[in-house]
Amino acid sequence: MSTPSPAALAKTPEPPYYAVIFSSIRNGTDAGYDAAAERMMSLAPQQPGFLGVESVRDPVTGLGITVSYWRDEDSIAAWRGQIEHRAAREMGRSLWYSEFELRVARVERVNSKRPDSK
Amino acid sequence: MSTPSPAALAKTPEPPYYAVIFSSIRNGTDAGYDAAAERMMSLAPQQPGFLGVESVRDPVTGLGITVSYWRDEDSIAAWRGQIEHRAAREMGRSLWYSEFELRVARVERVNSKRPDSK
Repeated sequence: MSTPSPAALAKTPEPPYYAVIFSSIRNGTDAGYDAAAERMMSLAPQQPGFLGVESVRDPVTGLGITVSYWRDEDSIAAWRGQIEHRAAREMGRSLWYSEFELRVARVERVNSKRPDSK
Repeated sequence: MSTPSPAALAKTPEPPYYAVIFSSIRNGTDAGYDAAAERMMSLAPQQPGFLGVESVRDPVTGLGITVSYWRDEDSIAAWRGQIEHRAAREMGRSLWYSEFELRVARVERVNSKRPDSK
């Protein structure tokens, strides 16, 4: 079982690569959300070009940010077309989220502090 | 007083614009963190080119994601040079965070659901 919010930063390669920033507000409707979220977190890493994911949600306000990292636009397009992911997105839009914004961005540079200096 | 984690999505313009994705793990050391975080959240919006910010931290795991949005690279550079922000970053690196990754990315496209269809 994957944990939806591991306390770990994604170990991404040197830029350039892509980030999909998904910011959302949950509306409190359960309707299979937890199971679906866990399923997506276990499916995404099986996709070609997947580089990592970071996810946090405030249980009080409902605000969540999930950032997934991808090798290129083709990897993002393939994940967007994945059949279970398509179904989950449809549920998200109609049921689970009162609002969301998904931003696709090209990572150009990084600055980090890592325990083992990465 | 600003709230560090408002349950609201940033209202950003049409792309392109820039996102600074700051993912971090807090180490539990207080040492002025809350006050500094609040101060940064009130200073950043005064910067030229600031477009918005979204921030969530899991109080249990310590994992946090803050994404700030900027008009262009110059706006990011100016904020990086802001004197109080410089001091806060130094504290962050040495004291508050056990690890972090800051990624600067160019937002290329978006997909959203907004209550008032934005």
